[in-house]
Amino acid sequence: MSNISIDVLGIGNAIVDVIAHADDDFLTLHGMAKGGMALIDEARAETLYLAMGAGIQVSGGSAANTCAGIASLGGTAGYIGKIKDDLLGRIFAHDITALGVRFETESASEGPATARCLVLVSPDAERTMNTFLGACVNLMPDDIDEAQIVGASITYLEGYLFDPPHAKEAFRKAARIARGAGRTVALSLSDSFCVDRYRQEFRELIGDHVDILFANEDEIRSLYGVNDIGEAIPAIEAATSVAAITRGAKGSLIVCGDDRIEIPPVPIERVVDTTGAGDLYAAGVLYGLARGLTLAECGHIGSVAAAEIISHFGGRPETPLATLIGKGAADPTSVARAGRVRLRS
Amino acid sequence: MSNISIDVLGIGNAIVDVIAHADDDFLTLHGMAKGGMALIDEARAETLYLAMGAGIQVSGGSAANTCAGIASLGGTAGYIGKIKDDLLGRIFAHDITALGVRFETESASEGPATARCLVLVSPDAERTMNTFLGACVNLMPDDIDEAQIVGASITYLEGYLFDPPHAKEAFRKAARIARGAGRTVALSLSDSFCVDRYRQEFRELIGDHVDILFANEDEIRSLYGVNDIGEAIPAIEAATSVAAITRGAKGSLIVCGDDRIEIPPVPIERVVDTTGAGDLYAAGVLYGLARGLTLAECGHIGSVAAAEIISHFGGRPETPLATLIGKGAADPTSVARAGRVRLRS
Repeated sequence: MSNISIDVLGIGNAIVDVIAHADDDFLTLHGMAKGGMALIDEARAETLYLAMGAGIQVSGGSAANTCAGIASLGGTAGYIGKIKDDLLGRIFAHDITALGVRFETESASEGPATARCLVLVSPDAERTMNTFLGACVNLMPDDIDEAQIVGASITYLEGYLFDPPHAKEAFRKAARIARGAGRTVALSLSDSFCVDRYRQEFRELIGDHVDILFANEDEIRSLYGVNDIGEAIPAIEAATSVAAITRGAKGSLIVCGDDRIEIPPVPIERVVDTTGAGDLYAAGVLYGLARGLTLAECGHIGSVAAAEIISHFGGRPETPLATLIGKGAADPTSVARAGRVRLRS
Repeated sequence: MSNISIDVLGIGNAIVDVIAHADDDFLTLHGMAKGGMALIDEARAETLYLAMGAGIQVSGGSAANTCAGIASLGGTAGYIGKIKDDLLGRIFAHDITALGVRFETESASEGPATARCLVLVSPDAERTMNTFLGACVNLMPDDIDEAQIVGASITYLEGYLFDPPHAKEAFRKAARIARGAGRTVALSLSDSFCVDRYRQEFRELIGDHVDILFANEDEIRSLYGVNDIGEAIPAIEAATSVAAITRGAKGSLIVCGDDRIEIPPVPIERVVDTTGAGDLYAAGVLYGLARGLTLAECGHIGSVAAAEIISHFGGRPETPLATLIGKGAADPTSVARAGRVRLRS
C-alpha cells in the first residue's frame, strides 16, 4: 500500500469562471433556471457575455475547486481535466498548480477553447451557471493514468463529467481502477438537472462503484424521485458507505450505516456568492476522511471551508483554509497510508 | 455649453489585473519595491506569473477604475485607452462598457498583447504592482478625439500615461483641448516612482494645464522634494485650483485656495486589498465636483468609494456605489452643464 502518494485525485471539467452580479429579472429574461447549471454553446456564451455585467475571471470547475480546497487545507491532491493551450487554459493550469495540486493532463492543441462558465450571482447570493464545455469534450479514457488513480487514497469524480461525450467512459475507467486497487471512490452529484439527465446511470454507478456520495437535497430528491429526503435514506444507506447531504443554510447531514450525523453550518457575517459551496464542503470532508478523522470532524471542516468560500466571489479559497482549521502548512507525511480510507462516525 | 454630455472622460493605460496573495519575502526575493508599480517586460511577466500564487483576473487600469467608479456612483463617464483585440482586451472592453462607460478607442489588431498587471497583495493588504504595458504603447495622439474631450465636464489623466512612448503626447493634446474649450483638467500623480521618472514634466504640466490634482503623500514629497507635506502646500495651492491628497488610513486633505478640508476615512471591518483605493477616491471626488457638490461632500463620497474597494480583491466596485451614497440609478439629466466645474469648499 506504500504507493499511495496523495489524499485525493479529482477528475472533472476544467473550467474558468466569469462571475458577475445579475438580478433575477436578468435570469428570467435569458431563460435561466435560478441555482442550476445549464450547458450552452459558444454562440450563446458570447451572447450572454455581452448581456451580462462586469465580471471577474477566476479558475473554477467543481472537482478542481475541491482539489484546490484540499491543498489549501494542507492536504495533497491531484487533478485530471482537459484544457486547451490558450489563455484561459494557462490561467487554469497556473492556478491549480500554484496551490500544489498535481495537474499533468495533456492540454489540447486544437479543437474548442478552454471551458468557461458564466456565473450570475443574484442579490440573495445564489449562483446560476451557464457552462460552455469547450475543450472538456476532449477528455478521453486515455487521460486516466492507472498509476495516478492507484496512488490516491480517494478518487473523486464530479457528476458533471457525464455531460461531455467521452468523459463518462474516463469516469468509469477511473472508478473501476480505484475499486480494483482497493481505493475509495467518491462522487458528487453536481446538480439536480444533471441528475435528471443521467438518473439511471447514476443510480447504477453509485450501487456498483461509489463509497462516498456528495449531494444536496434537490439532487437526492431527483435521484430517488422522492419529495422527502427521509424516504431516500434507506436506499442511500444501502448503496454507499458514507453519504454527505448538504442542506444550504441548515448545514449538512452525514449518513453512515445506522449513523445520522447532523453538521451545523459555520456562521458568517454576509453570504456574498454561493459559488463553490458544495465543492469546498466536499474538500473538507474528503480531507478529513483521508486523514482518518471522525465523520463529525470531517463535516465540521467541510462547514469551515464552505463558509470561507461563500464569503467572497468565486469558488477558490482566498484565505488559506489550513489557518482556519488551526493547522499550519501542509504535512505530506501524514497522508493516509491505508488503501481504503477508514470510514467511522 | 450644451454639448457637454458626460461628467468625466478618463484617459489611461487599459490593463487587466492578475491579483494574488504574496508574503513580503516573495516581494524581496523578486526585487519588488512594496507598494509601488514597476514596469516589466513580457518575459519577466511570464516568470513572475509562474512564481506567484493562484489569482483572480479583473479589469483594472487606474483611470479606468476611476471611470468605473463614476459610473457605479450614477455618474456618466467615457474612457480612452488602448487594448489589443485579444481575450484580455475583450474582457477589458466588456467590463468597462457593461458599466455604461463609453469606450470607443480602436483596439490594436497587431503588436503586443493587452496590458496586464501582476498585483501582489501582502498580508497587510498593501498591493505591489508589476505592469507589462503591452498594447498601451500604441496609444497615439490620434486616439484623442476633440469632440469627446469637449463633451466632458472634466478630463481626467493618469500620470502612468507618461510611461508609454506616445501616450504623453496624447495626454498633452487632451489637456490642451480641454483647457481650450473651457473644461476642467484633472491629473492623478499615480505613483511616487512615476513622479521620480517625470518630476520636471509633471511640475510644468500641473502649472500649465491642471485644475484638480490627485496625489498621495509620497507622490507630493517626490514632486516637490520635501519631507513634510506642509512645506509643499503653498506650491500646490499656487499651481492648482483643487488638490486632493490621500493619506491612507488617515483619510485625505483637500486644498482649495486658503481652505484646508480634512476628510475622515470611512471605517471598514477589514482591509483586504488596497488595489484601486486612490482610483476610487478620485472617482468620488470627481463625481461630486461634476455634480456641483461641496468639497467636503466630494471628499466624503471619495472616502465611501475607497472604503468599498479596499474591502475586497480588485480595483473595480463589487457593490453599486450609488446605493452606498443613498442614490438610486444613474440620473444622466443632472450632468453638470457648466464648462469649467465650479470649485467651492
